[in-house]
Amino acid sequence: MKYFITGGAGFIGSNLADRLLRDGHQVTVYDNYSTGQEKFLDVARNQPSFTFVKGDLLDFNHLKQSMGKPDFVFHLAANADVRYGTVQPRKDLEQNTIATFNVLEAMRLNGVYRIAFASTGSVYGESTIFPTPEDVNFPVQTSLYAASKLAGEGLIEAFCEGFGFQGYIFRFVSILGERYSHGHVFDFYDKLRKDPNKLEVLGDGHQRKSYLYIQDCLDAVCMAIDKAQEKVNIFNLGTDEFCEVNDSIQWILAALGVQPEIYYTGGQRGWVGDNPFIFLDCQRMRNLGWEPKYSIRESIIRTLIFLQENQWLFELRC
Amino acid sequence: MKYFITGGAGFIGSNLADRLLRDGHQVTVYDNYSTGQEKFLDVARNQPSFTFVKGDLLDFNHLKQSMGKPDFVFHLAANADVRYGTVQPRKDLEQNTIATFNVLEAMRLNGVYRIAFASTGSVYGESTIFPTPEDVNFPVQTSLYAASKLAGEGLIEAFCEGFGFQGYIFRFVSILGERYSHGHVFDFYDKLRKDPNKLEVLGDGHQRKSYLYIQDCLDAVCMAIDKAQEKVNIFNLGTDEFCEVNDSIQWILAALGVQPEIYYTGGQRGWVGDNPFIFLDCQRMRNLGWEPKYSIRESIIRTLIFLQENQWLFELRC
Repeated sequence: MKYFITGGAGFIGSNLADRLLRDGHQVTVYDNYSTGQEKFLDVARNQPSFTFVKGDLLDFNHLKQSMGKPDFVFHLAANADVRYGTVQPRKDLEQNTIATFNVLEAMRLNGVYRIAFASTGSVYGESTIFPTPEDVNFPVQTSLYAASKLAGEGLIEAFCEGFGFQGYIFRFVSILGERYSHGHVFDFYDKLRKDPNKLEVLGDGHQRKSYLYIQDCLDAVCMAIDKAQEKVNIFNLGTDEFCEVNDSIQWILAALGVQPEIYYTGGQRGWVGDNPFIFLDCQRMRNLGWEPKYSIRESIIRTLIFLQENQWLFELRC
Repeated sequence: MKYFITGGAGFIGSNLADRLLRDGHQVTVYDNYSTGQEKFLDVARNQPSFTFVKGDLLDFNHLKQSMGKPDFVFHLAANADVRYGTVQPRKDLEQNTIATFNVLEAMRLNGVYRIAFASTGSVYGESTIFPTPEDVNFPVQTSLYAASKLAGEGLIEAFCEGFGFQGYIFRFVSILGERYSHGHVFDFYDKLRKDPNKLEVLGDGHQRKSYLYIQDCLDAVCMAIDKAQEKVNIFNLGTDEFCEVNDSIQWILAALGVQPEIYYTGGQRGWVGDNPFIFLDCQRMRNLGWEPKYSIRESIIRTLIFLQENQWLFELRC
């Protein structure tokens, strides 16, 4: 099969590229390196069935031309940092909503009809139902990030109905593992490597969050696009557990062998629009035969090992 | 109060402008006349407290400058024709989603924080719950129009959470009445004035739809922004009835005194992405004390009288 991966130099995209290549597929990665990393493609680049295209999704003509006619598009490129929506409101609109439209429109014009999309459990806003199933009550959005992802979902669904597309929408919890390069474990590790004696934590530490290990995530994604054959296929992806930010801090400190003083910025939310509790009902995906192999604690430990071995990621931000 | 109305030369917007002026308010209308009509503002234009600005919502700087600092923004401008999404997919994205973002961003930069938005019952897609309440299960979109309106809703909600906005989202059924100038009554009347002996009907005629009379709609909108004071206020707006397309045809034919042969294009849906049944639960709005005064039949008759007296609307399309 020929796959086209937007954001394929990123955390999830590059792991997916490696897996598809290992399984004998042809892979084209389209990435503007805004947050993706050349180094994440070191393995892929040595495969003859791999192609890299440097490009931006907002450059529609270049996207359309570069895409050609793959069998399947994984649309993973995004502004993935939910926290900064209020600082740059237009960024989520452009990089998530408009970019998703461009991918769909390029597909339509190129005669490509199958797409998988990385959405987010944040589209449930401040749900009151936990674990939250895919068909929970119509949610109210709380962040520009989630609003832009919901807009992407709606576009995909409308292209499925209007143009005969087949769509796979994955509402992820936070993903952890090798090549993870932004988010709370990254930030905590970065702070502790600079000063192991103190740690500032956004919110009160009681936010309850869910995480999933990257390979478990990719197991699910690949299984879903193989087994689920509805017009629109929507899946929550997470583990059957959640933890408090304080739990993850204790695991991180134990793994690093440090005992800093912890300062809380206070409040139920880490930032404006943060959802204090994310816990998804993943029964729909489990019904296909999938189950995650790693606990949240194990995926945090694996992430820390990766970060310890890849300190260059922190130097990029200096 | 100072009101700013986008799309204020349109069907709903111009009726709203007249009402707000009659109630003693200052009104600025911003409209590009793409579907709005100069004539619809004949009454408003004679009021000293009325200002018209010709402009496009995609011209962000002009919008921001023209908006100034009103107390309240009614964002009614839109590509309102759900049927043609598959012909011009980018139009809904630009005129509904991006335009809504521009309105919100201009408000934020100008220090304006209250907005009402014309959304649509189509965001419920093919709901299986009737009448459909605002908090029904998370819907799947079926048209680019509805997807672009849902995206607008999400943006408003995110601005409410992120920037302290107060938002009013109205999910309308189809609105009828004076200055109605697109939709099925318009099309049927247009066909019958050209040839009273035959009438082509999209679908099988059994599509079940809901309608609301424009003044009932505006009663609700004005009451809601006065009485509802949540951060995000979402209201369905419709009557407690629905009718088949065939019912409305019979009312139209009786009112016009014609008996054409009726041809059905067939199928459950009038067009790709059409929802064969729209019927909204409006109890939330009724709980504020509102009730519609006109039945669907009465609003169709009033619409026909308006169209008969305003044949110039059809000449515009020649």
